[in-house]
Amino acid sequence: MSSNSLPANYKIGFLGAGQLARMSSLQAFRFGIQVAVFSDRDENEPVQFMTPFSFSGSFDSVDDMAAFAKQCDVVTLENEFISSEILKEVQEQSGTPIYPSPDSFALIENKLIEKQTFEKAGIPVTPYQLIEDAKDLEAFGKKHGWPYVLKSSKGGYDGYGNETVRDLEKAKKAYQSLGGNTGRDIIAEAFVDFTNELAVQVARNETGTVVYPCCETVQKDHICVAVLSPAPVNSRYQIRAQELALSAAEAIDGKGIFAFEFFLTENGDVILNESAPRPHNSGHYTIEGCITSQFENHVRAVMGLSLGSSRLNKPAVAMINLLGTHKRPAEVTHIKKALAAENGHLHIYGKMESKVGRKMAHFTLLGEDLEATYNKAKTLSRNIEI
Amino acid sequence: MSSNSLPANYKIGFLGAGQLARMSSLQAFRFGIQVAVFSDRDENEPVQFMTPFSFSGSFDSVDDMAAFAKQCDVVTLENEFISSEILKEVQEQSGTPIYPSPDSFALIENKLIEKQTFEKAGIPVTPYQLIEDAKDLEAFGKKHGWPYVLKSSKGGYDGYGNETVRDLEKAKKAYQSLGGNTGRDIIAEAFVDFTNELAVQVARNETGTVVYPCCETVQKDHICVAVLSPAPVNSRYQIRAQELALSAAEAIDGKGIFAFEFFLTENGDVILNESAPRPHNSGHYTIEGCITSQFENHVRAVMGLSLGSSRLNKPAVAMINLLGTHKRPAEVTHIKKALAAENGHLHIYGKMESKVGRKMAHFTLLGEDLEATYNKAKTLSRNIEI
Repeated sequence: MSSNSLPANYKIGFLGAGQLARMSSLQAFRFGIQVAVFSDRDENEPVQFMTPFSFSGSFDSVDDMAAFAKQCDVVTLENEFISSEILKEVQEQSGTPIYPSPDSFALIENKLIEKQTFEKAGIPVTPYQLIEDAKDLEAFGKKHGWPYVLKSSKGGYDGYGNETVRDLEKAKKAYQSLGGNTGRDIIAEAFVDFTNELAVQVARNETGTVVYPCCETVQKDHICVAVLSPAPVNSRYQIRAQELALSAAEAIDGKGIFAFEFFLTENGDVILNESAPRPHNSGHYTIEGCITSQFENHVRAVMGLSLGSSRLNKPAVAMINLLGTHKRPAEVTHIKKALAAENGHLHIYGKMESKVGRKMAHFTLLGEDLEATYNKAKTLSRNIEI
Repeated sequence: MSSNSLPANYKIGFLGAGQLARMSSLQAFRFGIQVAVFSDRDENEPVQFMTPFSFSGSFDSVDDMAAFAKQCDVVTLENEFISSEILKEVQEQSGTPIYPSPDSFALIENKLIEKQTFEKAGIPVTPYQLIEDAKDLEAFGKKHGWPYVLKSSKGGYDGYGNETVRDLEKAKKAYQSLGGNTGRDIIAEAFVDFTNELAVQVARNETGTVVYPCCETVQKDHICVAVLSPAPVNSRYQIRAQELALSAAEAIDGKGIFAFEFFLTENGDVILNESAPRPHNSGHYTIEGCITSQFENHVRAVMGLSLGSSRLNKPAVAMINLLGTHKRPAEVTHIKKALAAENGHLHIYGKMESKVGRKMAHFTLLGEDLEATYNKAKTLSRNIEI
């Protein structure tokens, strides 16, 4: 595969069959590429309605995944649930390259190593500590103050695997519920008093690097409910976040698309919070919002093709996550206003079952003014039920 | 299915498994909709790599297609190869609605009926006549002058099924090669001295009608090589073509997406040339060029959803059809420039085999000035080989 050509019959494999594989596939198809997915779940995933090449097996089984990888020209990740050691063996056994590489992934695969990697690269991270026992819980609170955050070092997402603890009693409980006493690594992170949560995507491969605009993720109960781009903060902070995101992608020698989430503090510090070696919810707005979406650049990056421009198509973009409102067979209702809005774009994920709070769809609105666009997007999508 | 909601598990069926089904599917997937395709061919079609719901059978068999339609919530057309009578039976036998409806399709399914339908609606069409025997060939030439065009009344596309004839000898030969003496209806059309060939897409259903910008199709040897939007002609002609396209869509009570092709003559007449009850090559530029692509509005229209805006995203759009340059297993080479161009968008169709002149891919470039954008698009895609 050269950076200058695209053969027919090229197949990209996704380890994981969730929404990110689904949305990436849509971009792969635009290049005439075939898509194969590997699922570790029993139920049908929407992406499996989009390809005849559907495999299942365990994320712990090198044999399962190597058999899958042999069917593909390149394999990429859709989540952080497979260990870098196993990925390395899958790559060796199948002969199929995996990007982001197992070596890159090893540098961020758990929260402790991730912090160390980025700290070493000079990127500010929140103060943290590996918790070995209950004494550490108390000491960390004394040193950095209460409340602070306990995180499972692996597998957390969307607020799962995270708990904010206000005192030692709560901390001990959370340590248990997060699995600390069953051998899972738990880290404590100092609570950062932030004014905004920011995110930046970076696409990177041997042909070059593309950094996306700095956006704001609006969170409610640890769930991202909206993304605004460009982030409504002073442009010096936007640029700072972009710089740090570029350094972070370089620090892990990343090939693929990466998302970096930051806290902007009251005194103007930009601190790296989390990273993801894959397309990310904070970048869904790029589908219509930017010239080249995070999904298209993900596909380009892992295939070694030149990357596309990340420029915004309009001065303001608002993306609203549409969460399940009922426990029922999925049906997205009251969509007329959202569908009819000029430059409103409704994406539905094709999940069969809805439940309250489940990410089921999103709505992106492009406009001229960020506040007006965000308000309009909320109004247009307010009555949607799922 | 209401115009205000979208259930999970909704399935759209395409009669035909070509590129138009493939590109429409990409938009259906954005709504979480499932796609089924019905192919009448033996070889693998690229869209069959994008769905596990792939059926085959004959376009003459009501049973084959009704069994397919029963698996779908709505069925739509991808070509004009199935007779309206058969479509009506498929609809009755399966109970699944087909849009555009068999009744609409009956009004345009062959070139003779099509001309009569649009003439009756007051839309200017080229002078024409059904050719019953060789005497008609001579009489038509006498009345309208040589050369003129002979067309098979059904199934022609991309210049196939059309011949320009310069004298009676040539006309007799063409009449035979087009199948006139084996019972196929052949019509003669007066040659129109045009300055430009224009096209307009119309999306239409019970919720409303959306007309796309008037674009120019640039033809070479009866093959469309490029599309420019908006068409570089006086805006009064653009508007005239849009008016006629709206009347034409209304004349057949169309539900779906329709493309209408026009001649602009030297003295400023806009004359309807051909119509297509489906997405059309002249509308591929709308994927990035317009807020809502012809494919998305196709899917919306046949599902009864509100239609999206057809407004241009940039003042100028050029689309270059990338035709096969070699007979070989398909590989699209020298794509670096096209991929790296800001606001250039490369689409590859995933066909396994290339041959000279076969439509294999297209390249769309958005810009500020039409001539500059067209020239740049040609330069960027010039070296691509397939």
